[in-house]
Amino acid sequence: MTDLAQALFAPRAVALVGASGDAKKNTARPQRFLARHGYAGTVLPINPTRAEVLGAKAWRSVADAPQPVDHAFIMIPEVEQAIEDCGRSGVAVASIFSDGFADVGPEGAARQARLVARAKELGVRLLGPNSMGVIDIPGRLALTVNAVLEMDALPAGGASIVSQSGTMLGTVLSRGAARGLGFAKLVSVGNEADLGVGELVELLADDADTRVILLFLETVRDAERLAAAARRAHAAGKPVVAYKLGRSALGERLARSHTGALAGSDAALDAYFRDCGIVRVDMLETLIEIAPLIAGRAPVRLSRPPRVAVVTTTGGGAASVVDRLGLSGIETVAPGSDAPIIDLTMAGTSAQYAATLASLLASPECDAVLAVVGSSAMFHPQHAVEPILGAPRTAKPLAAFLTPHAEQSLALLARAEVAAFRTPEACADAFRAYFAWRAPRGISAEVLDLRLQEKKFDEKSSLELFASLGIETAASQVARAPGFEHSLPYPVAAKILSAEIAHKTEAGGVILGIGNRAEFERKVPSLKSNEILVQAMQDGLAEAIVGYRDDPMVGPLALVGAGGVTAEVYRDVVLALAPVSVEEAEEMIARVKGFAVLRGYRGLPRGDLRALAQTLAALSRLALLPGRPVAEAEINPVIVKRSGTVAVDGLVLPKA
Amino acid sequence: MTDLAQALFAPRAVALVGASGDAKKNTARPQRFLARHGYAGTVLPINPTRAEVLGAKAWRSVADAPQPVDHAFIMIPEVEQAIEDCGRSGVAVASIFSDGFADVGPEGAARQARLVARAKELGVRLLGPNSMGVIDIPGRLALTVNAVLEMDALPAGGASIVSQSGTMLGTVLSRGAARGLGFAKLVSVGNEADLGVGELVELLADDADTRVILLFLETVRDAERLAAAARRAHAAGKPVVAYKLGRSALGERLARSHTGALAGSDAALDAYFRDCGIVRVDMLETLIEIAPLIAGRAPVRLSRPPRVAVVTTTGGGAASVVDRLGLSGIETVAPGSDAPIIDLTMAGTSAQYAATLASLLASPECDAVLAVVGSSAMFHPQHAVEPILGAPRTAKPLAAFLTPHAEQSLALLARAEVAAFRTPEACADAFRAYFAWRAPRGISAEVLDLRLQEKKFDEKSSLELFASLGIETAASQVARAPGFEHSLPYPVAAKILSAEIAHKTEAGGVILGIGNRAEFERKVPSLKSNEILVQAMQDGLAEAIVGYRDDPMVGPLALVGAGGVTAEVYRDVVLALAPVSVEEAEEMIARVKGFAVLRGYRGLPRGDLRALAQTLAALSRLALLPGRPVAEAEINPVIVKRSGTVAVDGLVLPKA
Repeated sequence: MTDLAQALFAPRAVALVGASGDAKKNTARPQRFLARHGYAGTVLPINPTRAEVLGAKAWRSVADAPQPVDHAFIMIPEVEQAIEDCGRSGVAVASIFSDGFADVGPEGAARQARLVARAKELGVRLLGPNSMGVIDIPGRLALTVNAVLEMDALPAGGASIVSQSGTMLGTVLSRGAARGLGFAKLVSVGNEADLGVGELVELLADDADTRVILLFLETVRDAERLAAAARRAHAAGKPVVAYKLGRSALGERLARSHTGALAGSDAALDAYFRDCGIVRVDMLETLIEIAPLIAGRAPVRLSRPPRVAVVTTTGGGAASVVDRLGLSGIETVAPGSDAPIIDLTMAGTSAQYAATLASLLASPECDAVLAVVGSSAMFHPQHAVEPILGAPRTAKPLAAFLTPHAEQSLALLARAEVAAFRTPEACADAFRAYFAWRAPRGISAEVLDLRLQEKKFDEKSSLELFASLGIETAASQVARAPGFEHSLPYPVAAKILSAEIAHKTEAGGVILGIGNRAEFERKVPSLKSNEILVQAMQDGLAEAIVGYRDDPMVGPLALVGAGGVTAEVYRDVVLALAPVSVEEAEEMIARVKGFAVLRGYRGLPRGDLRALAQTLAALSRLALLPGRPVAEAEINPVIVKRSGTVAVDGLVLPKA
Repeated sequence: MTDLAQALFAPRAVALVGASGDAKKNTARPQRFLARHGYAGTVLPINPTRAEVLGAKAWRSVADAPQPVDHAFIMIPEVEQAIEDCGRSGVAVASIFSDGFADVGPEGAARQARLVARAKELGVRLLGPNSMGVIDIPGRLALTVNAVLEMDALPAGGASIVSQSGTMLGTVLSRGAARGLGFAKLVSVGNEADLGVGELVELLADDADTRVILLFLETVRDAERLAAAARRAHAAGKPVVAYKLGRSALGERLARSHTGALAGSDAALDAYFRDCGIVRVDMLETLIEIAPLIAGRAPVRLSRPPRVAVVTTTGGGAASVVDRLGLSGIETVAPGSDAPIIDLTMAGTSAQYAATLASLLASPECDAVLAVVGSSAMFHPQHAVEPILGAPRTAKPLAAFLTPHAEQSLALLARAEVAAFRTPEACADAFRAYFAWRAPRGISAEVLDLRLQEKKFDEKSSLELFASLGIETAASQVARAPGFEHSLPYPVAAKILSAEIAHKTEAGGVILGIGNRAEFERKVPSLKSNEILVQAMQDGLAEAIVGYRDDPMVGPLALVGAGGVTAEVYRDVVLALAPVSVEEAEEMIARVKGFAVLRGYRGLPRGDLRALAQTLAALSRLALLPGRPVAEAEINPVIVKRSGTVAVDGLVLPKA
């Protein structure tokens, strides 16, 4: 264990700064909770106005403490002074419950920055401010104000959780405890002024009690560190699972490029989680229930839809989960039969049930096994779950869904580390998340030897940049007033040439399909521009949008979607961390629904999706430019032909 | 109470045909359950091999019963003989647990048809076969084999449920009971050979104990009767809520028209539920939890997104439900402030909390109120929910979401008939369903005075039928070999004229944009047809698909979607029971996402969506043809112009 982990999770002595003698106050809780849950170290209440607090001798300040303190829990408004005291006394970690920092606006943020700088000078690591504290269940540390610790017995388990919401730790703990699902470590990170989610995941990746790492997130503040930590956890065989709020803010942003609007922060994070090997769950209950499903397992890659074998003794109960699995694109199978499920209602001895489970777990025809248990789970828990508890442990996941209210059965399954679900929805969500799980992607560290010449890009220079990346672009010439001479063959398109107008079509700055010189001369004056771009018209099967964006939260992203308004209206785009290889680009393209028209849908001719993948991969290499000078870039549209693609319209926005 | 309702739910004497003396057998359960739950009538075990069963005198057959029997519960394979006995003894209702009828294929279905016919002759109404029976909690009738009745105390409540899955009654009952949510009547309909879901909803609409009617459905077997029953329940102020399986089968059907493929059975049922005023929930737990949210309430119609005021004492807990509401298009508001929620964490006296709830319930700025309760719900239930229990009862829904595991708080809220939710997802699902709820639509009973002349329709005659409905169609002429003469101005389209080829484009049977006579003569031979349809080419802003389908399950439907492949790839179509008025058609069109391009999206010109609505309404009038001879009809595409629409391609499939 590192010194930091030791001070944070297993301190030999803790100081409770601002510990109250009024047992009803929040600030009295840590002392009560530490005692209640059997903390074996020394508890030092710090309170300058009292000689004792709740029966323990109190000290005026951390600096007065009679022995070395590993971890201080600060609950007073005078945080700065407390940190000075900690620094003077060699306290390794201070968890700050007090708020009034970045949580209250710019002034608080400035206060926080000063605090962090000073703590660094003093050598004190900070958790919070605005943190509810740290709980280590096997270690019997309940250094928190979270009321959920009023519970008597906290079951221990192999899942640890890092949460940006302190109260949600209580939700997770209490809901888990009610059904026998335990946890190892629980950390409320608050404002993440110093210790962030990423660094905590690093610590948990190395933690002997932790087998699965759960994240409750409202945002990501340290994407690079978290990405590295997720890799480390993956290497240690510990899955990382995230539940993230803020999904509905999607699309609220105003953005100059379509790519900006489409790569909303939630879509960006989704790609980030996927590429970092982080399992993303959709439902809150899944976060609590999924750990045993993935603990000790690795991501699987299938070249066909996932298949779950469903064994049941209750037809109606199984139907509700089969339906939900189907909605997630997961097939349910009964190997050796045409039925969608294996109904043992009639056949049902325990031995037969056990034999069926064993044979399914060994069968190559399914990728996971789900046992659905009916009313017996309520009235005869031991008997109902016995064959499930006795099933062999394999790389293939085995889970249970219990149709009635059956807490005892849930607890038996939890104790045996078999995943069990209360609702068909969370069950299907967990399987969906499991099958969507990928190993962390390797991201190229190559450097692209190319220099941006311009500060502003117009259509012409944007297309030239794309061409320099190896992207096929439409032949074009700049034509100038008064004659607007050019030598391209008709039909042509004419466009305003301007670095100021991002959406030229909407601004009336594009004329398509000009058939001859006379039409050209008649129409071009309507563009009201002395300089226009003339392009050879391009014929193809369909349009696509290909984009690049250096996201402020997660870094460079590649984006691909169907062209026209489809991508935006249906949000039918796929994102990944940039750069992407051609093969990775092909996989992204395979996930765009609208490209059905290019995959032979209803007998339509097939488009050159390999060439589209090459274009996407090439554009995504903007991420390899030294210093990453490009904020956003997009080709909209790329024309996809039977053979090849051609970039017709481009936009490059350098960083300010 | 009708005689039927009395015999079904409040029989004075029940006969248990096949009652077993072995207490462990399923067939011993009804007798045990009736006793355990305090049935006050007479229980008559029928068993020809025994003199007594579980302490009660047994009878050889129903015909030997010593007193009149209202309701027989049949558990023996010899169902036919039992029904004969029932008929002879004047038994009003027989619930049949035995299976082996329509549940086992065509032979069983034939057996079932014979049984129903004979029962009708005998004057015996049937529930089942394959029914788990009937439970009336306030009436203390537990006439069922469902193991969940092993529970000691069954809480009574105002929700009744009709289920096509017998085991799901147990799921619903046990999960409700664990949190104090009670039920009135529970009916397992089995195969619905006689008494169907619709007729049971009629009975429940008139039932004094029932305030909300819940349906657990796998299919709909009696759409017309259920529609009428839903209207009756609506008139009686009783909301009807449906959870339906089989959603993932969507799109599996092969269909000749696009409309057929798009109006899959789940999409058809969704339109049916909506137009019948049935609230459809997405999640199983919502079915259990939603009743208090809608009991005694009526559908609301808003001309803006719904607004829920969220009051909380736990920021993180509220965020999870706010996020989910947002994903359902529901805004969260704090009237009088810009914040998305009202956080009373700091302000928190009970009196302030109560005053806040009262003022929100009276405020015109929100449409519902949600109280989010944190850990206090777990440790101080009475105190935590007190202000919620004391809130005024208004037409505006008030609900609670409890973040920790808190069964006592849930029970307090249930007893006070305040909707309470365990998960953010079910909470948001319930609000979504509530706001999507509409009063049953009036469907025109007009008869259309028009006769179908053809048995088979080609392109030409299809367009003629549409024209006769008042739909604007493209000018067209039939041209015949060898000269293929026509008098339409160029450019034109040329199409194979055939009633056999539904998808002419895919079959290579359409040539678009023929610019002049020479091109026409050069290209037309490639159609390899002696008879072609020549049409004036149409210019417009976008394409749409407008369809009609007489669905075998729910009857006539109107469909509208964006044109091209969009409708199918993204399932972006809207359905309603046909016929629809122009105003109803406009509302359908407003729900098609892809029509964003015709609504002024990104400065694009607006299309004439009123004219599209007129086209949709006109086509939907095929539902008014005497005898409803049309199986499917579609216009694909309809060209939408700045002013007006024009039908370009048509398909009419009469019933076989």
